[in-house]
Amino acid sequence: MVICLIGTGLIGCSMALTLKQASFASRVIGVDKNPMHLDKAISLGYVDEGASLEDGIKQSDAIVIATPVNIIASLLPNVLDLIEDQWVIDVGSTKSILIDKVSHHEKRGHYVASHPMAGTEFSGPEAAIPNLFQNKVVVLCNTMDNPKQILEQAVRLFEQLEMEILYQDAVEHDIHAAYVSHISHISSFALALTVLEKEKNEDEIFKLASGGFDSTVRLAKSSPAMWVPIFEQNRDNVLDVLDEHINTLARFRSLLIKKDFDAFYKAIEKANDIKRILQAK
Amino acid sequence: MVICLIGTGLIGCSMALTLKQASFASRVIGVDKNPMHLDKAISLGYVDEGASLEDGIKQSDAIVIATPVNIIASLLPNVLDLIEDQWVIDVGSTKSILIDKVSHHEKRGHYVASHPMAGTEFSGPEAAIPNLFQNKVVVLCNTMDNPKQILEQAVRLFEQLEMEILYQDAVEHDIHAAYVSHISHISSFALALTVLEKEKNEDEIFKLASGGFDSTVRLAKSSPAMWVPIFEQNRDNVLDVLDEHINTLARFRSLLIKKDFDAFYKAIEKANDIKRILQAK
Repeated sequence: MVICLIGTGLIGCSMALTLKQASFASRVIGVDKNPMHLDKAISLGYVDEGASLEDGIKQSDAIVIATPVNIIASLLPNVLDLIEDQWVIDVGSTKSILIDKVSHHEKRGHYVASHPMAGTEFSGPEAAIPNLFQNKVVVLCNTMDNPKQILEQAVRLFEQLEMEILYQDAVEHDIHAAYVSHISHISSFALALTVLEKEKNEDEIFKLASGGFDSTVRLAKSSPAMWVPIFEQNRDNVLDVLDEHINTLARFRSLLIKKDFDAFYKAIEKANDIKRILQAK
Repeated sequence: MVICLIGTGLIGCSMALTLKQASFASRVIGVDKNPMHLDKAISLGYVDEGASLEDGIKQSDAIVIATPVNIIASLLPNVLDLIEDQWVIDVGSTKSILIDKVSHHEKRGHYVASHPMAGTEFSGPEAAIPNLFQNKVVVLCNTMDNPKQILEQAVRLFEQLEMEILYQDAVEHDIHAAYVSHISHISSFALALTVLEKEKNEDEIFKLASGGFDSTVRLAKSSPAMWVPIFEQNRDNVLDVLDEHINTLARFRSLLIKKDFDAFYKAIEKANDIKRILQAK
């Protein structure tokens, strides 16, 4: 199968790598507005050749859109305009807005809205890694809109990546994504900023920062070009969760002010419950 | 050298393990009010025998206090009462209150206030790991109060652990610790609680939570018995940083409400600066 990969960054190239290794993709045609990414992806062997959007789609059996979500939103209608019987997946962290963009398109059924929940804080083709998707979850949304034979092909692709497939309504997906992914990034960006703004003596941060700090601010290395469009597209859900998170922190603040350390202890015991959930994974 | 280890948990046992391997400690006598921890520490070989506080101190050349900081605060004066020419270190994440507790004690100089900045989200002797301290920083505070020959011995101990030694004023230490360690834990506990309270459908969290979520809530597994006393002893600094953190999140909230995504982009670019600091490590 020939795959047209639009966006040759960390996610797209990691996907191409595994799909080629599994012989699911016989050839990967890269489409990227950034010639440096495209050249790098070709030189690293993830992509076989570059092409324009039109030519890439024309030559391929399936299209993978692996760009930031604002670019997915603007490209998706064009891509559906250009396909004949091919099918299309994306990798965006938001789903409702993307589906809405093409809900009345005659080729709507050819688009399987998907969110593989995998990634790192890095970006670009050099950051691609093997097995990035293995044993992770991919959420497929509103698949009642997809003809059976198209959905089956998309499912086969994610099976090659050894992902667990979950089906959700796009609106539900966006709420959950705000809770289990988007707020973690907001929190991490804020923590990094707070520390950077207060600790003017950077030497102290750099020397004292231990493993705990590293892990909570790791996500703060993530690219704004990827994340700001996610926060924009999922704004209402992110605002809702952010309000809750600020409320929880304000509750902690109030307990510290009142020196109510018994209540603080109980709150942390409750937070410890996250162990049970993370261990179950 | 015979070491009396008060508190046979993750930190104490990891330290005993390395000090024995390096032949710095010929024997480790464990003191713990929790007989299960002590038995486990002995059966795992980290500790050679158990003893009462009095007997343990009497038989040893040096004392390591590796308990939660509230226990350090209550034990430290007793320990200084019991020593003759031995020296004492602790591993607490706060320093000012502990030093204040014994500032007028005639054996004040025998106590080298230390904070090895290493640990994991786990606890107990089973959680001990080799090389936990290697290449990490230990902060020694107010060492102008320590006679040279005592300070040298404590330094030798931390050199055996292959730690980088940093000297700080205790008040300064507590401020920095609030920024680079304590707030990370507060943030992580709050994030876990927020998600647990909102996402009643635990199955969804457990399936959707990806690597990003894991790393930001990892610290939320940490023990309240260890952390609440830290927040209590470093309350004013923690409150100050927490206020700043809530302000940063409120600023993000305001940008989302105003849909000012350009300013959000710039804020995240600034947060990305943390890369430079973490990479320098």
